[in-house]
Amino acid sequence: MKKIFISNILESVQLQQQVELFGWVKHIRNHNSILFLDLVDSTGKIQVTVSKSRLKKHFEKVKDVRPGSAVRVTGHKHNFNNKGRKNIEIVAETVGVLGDYNLKITPHPRSKFHVFDEKYTDLVLKNRSLYLCNPKQAAVLSFKSKFVFELHKYFQENKFTFIEPPILTEMLLYDDKTAFHFDYEGNKVWLSQCCTFQLEAAILAFEKVYSITPSFRSEHSRSDRHLNEYTHLKVEVAWSNLNDLSELAENILYSMAIRMNEVGKKELKILGASLHPDDYKPPYPSITYDEAVRILNKKGHFAYGKSLGRSRLTELTKSFDNKHLWIKFIPRSAEAFPFSINPANKNLVLAADLIAPYDFAEIGGVAEKIHSKDELLERMAEKGRSSSKNIERYKSYIELRDAGLPPHGGIGMGIDRIARYLMKLPHVKDVLPFPRLFGRRWNP
Amino acid sequence: MKKIFISNILESVQLQQQVELFGWVKHIRNHNSILFLDLVDSTGKIQVTVSKSRLKKHFEKVKDVRPGSAVRVTGHKHNFNNKGRKNIEIVAETVGVLGDYNLKITPHPRSKFHVFDEKYTDLVLKNRSLYLCNPKQAAVLSFKSKFVFELHKYFQENKFTFIEPPILTEMLLYDDKTAFHFDYEGNKVWLSQCCTFQLEAAILAFEKVYSITPSFRSEHSRSDRHLNEYTHLKVEVAWSNLNDLSELAENILYSMAIRMNEVGKKELKILGASLHPDDYKPPYPSITYDEAVRILNKKGHFAYGKSLGRSRLTELTKSFDNKHLWIKFIPRSAEAFPFSINPANKNLVLAADLIAPYDFAEIGGVAEKIHSKDELLERMAEKGRSSSKNIERYKSYIELRDAGLPPHGGIGMGIDRIARYLMKLPHVKDVLPFPRLFGRRWNP
Repeated sequence: MKKIFISNILESVQLQQQVELFGWVKHIRNHNSILFLDLVDSTGKIQVTVSKSRLKKHFEKVKDVRPGSAVRVTGHKHNFNNKGRKNIEIVAETVGVLGDYNLKITPHPRSKFHVFDEKYTDLVLKNRSLYLCNPKQAAVLSFKSKFVFELHKYFQENKFTFIEPPILTEMLLYDDKTAFHFDYEGNKVWLSQCCTFQLEAAILAFEKVYSITPSFRSEHSRSDRHLNEYTHLKVEVAWSNLNDLSELAENILYSMAIRMNEVGKKELKILGASLHPDDYKPPYPSITYDEAVRILNKKGHFAYGKSLGRSRLTELTKSFDNKHLWIKFIPRSAEAFPFSINPANKNLVLAADLIAPYDFAEIGGVAEKIHSKDELLERMAEKGRSSSKNIERYKSYIELRDAGLPPHGGIGMGIDRIARYLMKLPHVKDVLPFPRLFGRRWNP
Repeated sequence: MKKIFISNILESVQLQQQVELFGWVKHIRNHNSILFLDLVDSTGKIQVTVSKSRLKKHFEKVKDVRPGSAVRVTGHKHNFNNKGRKNIEIVAETVGVLGDYNLKITPHPRSKFHVFDEKYTDLVLKNRSLYLCNPKQAAVLSFKSKFVFELHKYFQENKFTFIEPPILTEMLLYDDKTAFHFDYEGNKVWLSQCCTFQLEAAILAFEKVYSITPSFRSEHSRSDRHLNEYTHLKVEVAWSNLNDLSELAENILYSMAIRMNEVGKKELKILGASLHPDDYKPPYPSITYDEAVRILNKKGHFAYGKSLGRSRLTELTKSFDNKHLWIKFIPRSAEAFPFSINPANKNLVLAADLIAPYDFAEIGGVAEKIHSKDELLERMAEKGRSSSKNIERYKSYIELRDAGLPPHGGIGMGIDRIARYLMKLPHVKDVLPFPRLFGRRWNP
């Protein structure tokens, strides 16, 4: 793999040295007997000077090359003066077009335009493959690539074990309506909504486990925060309680802000985004769900027991100086059955939602999981899961409560949401290369 | 998260110091007024000494605790002599059972037995959640956790961008029969067999991309090498040819052997497995498919044009001193449509399979991908994909050939197969916590 990147040529190759160079034409300026090609790849931009006298019969083909075409250039590295500043150019000996650009789509994928603006959403999603190379879109995906890696690094450094959960499963966290199902060898099977069932088993082997995995929700939401298919960070920890878990979640978020501000500098600059790790510094204020409802009821009626919607969450973070906010002890009616009941108030569970300020709303949650078999069966009945068929489906999960399962709990975070939040993007779809949104065709 | 691991107590805590300790009971020896509990977690084993006089009324409960139960112990760290060697024990002040073990399954999950032996396969898979904590099974999963991380690290260090492909897709690499499909909002949609279609688009943005992602194959195979759901490593590189790609694949495998021999030392020791990185050192010998058939035909008839089966691959690696072996220029009839036709012999494609010795058979492959639109349409017709509906399904993929797509190619590797091979395990299922095998229930 000897191919050289543009950044290598800019930084490492000596002047006068011969180079072989690959890239895409970004601009072409035609001064009759001389052409200036601006070539780009993911690492930088370089000017290639092509003279008619040197290139002879190939000049005509190169003259008509369209922006977006892939080219191979050989030549020598030189300096030239541009408005008093020294710049680097390649004086070309050969130019070969290796991939023609023949499309008429506008704006041109490699051009500067507000790719995340709503008015381009339809165009960009319908032509997703073409617009991945847009400089701002590419910066987002590059940031995401580093983000996923830094997450793995965080957990590996902190002695967590990575678990690959199955995608096909019979165990659902929520109801069947919000799950995708299909026929597998004559049996009904679902796409995983959450891997808590498998991670809880794995703590018997490793105490501290995590997964970064696709999760699927068949939700009919057109909000800027929901995808049918998204990347789910799940963590499960033995011997842990709500305080341990909130502390860990805060540490994850803060550490990622610090790390991404370092390793994502270039991408943030391209996006014109600024990331201030101090904004993510723990500890975060915490209120109970009951207190949240009291605050909200001062301004208008809110029905106790429901999920707090996005606008209300934004209102709450505003009243806490736009800080991150924990809302803890959620009504059991609003939460999934594996969450532990609060012994001090049996209408609530030992769970807390992590709310980001500035309208980004919920980005994660923590919960103690049920440890006793009787409590689990009670909660399953409450959620309509006590048929013998359901008891059979969740058998292995129930059985863990007889297998030396210690008190434990977990964290769930939508990492697309967090990446979006760190970059302050208008929509969560932008952080996945091929987002699956409700109401859109699945292609590509 | 102040919880202390057993390894920390063994290594870092001072003698006489008070400790709080969590773990699972592995063995219990009852000497009437004194109990010896062997406690384990994922980091080690420690002896806890419990005297009746000190524990008083709790002693009776602790005495009857069953191996596998989760306990909390407080006490002090001491030395004791065992056959002339100094050992560490905790002299307990309190012992609390936090998670009872009430199951009658045998062999006990935490006991030593040949967990990978075929005679236990059915038992272990039916009770998968319980047997993850078996010491050898846990060592395999811990090795796999590190393996996935080291793969990410390799690619990030080498400036590849991680791409998260969609799982739901309309674009299939192979035929519909080997894909899982279901209804998505009234439309037929498939689970991804391969993300080449998305990675090829991403090279327009990043030149060098990779993915580590679930892939799905509805194959009716009961071999020790096939899963319906597995972890797929896919790499795609702009400006690359078959030589570049083989070299890169060899480098990946060799680098992983070196890294895993370092970071997986502890796990390999538990498994009694030895890993010799020198065995993986490139370059690997390479023969053409035609030469392979000639070698095989000396020993018996082999029908030209078909996939070489496992026993034949093993025979071939044997005749090359049990080295890794490339088999290149595969018949186009045997390969998927995105692979480039060999201009020197149009019945062959520019693809090569990487064969591991000792009956582990194929562990990966490399291929140049089709770069011209006409060639792609020809190959699609050949594979029965030229209906207008199919042209629509693959529209975005075809269109890339008009979007400045350069010559390029990719690598595909089953990372479960490679992890299995490095550890020399009898079956690929053992490297996934919840493997999905043909003919098995999907639960858990």
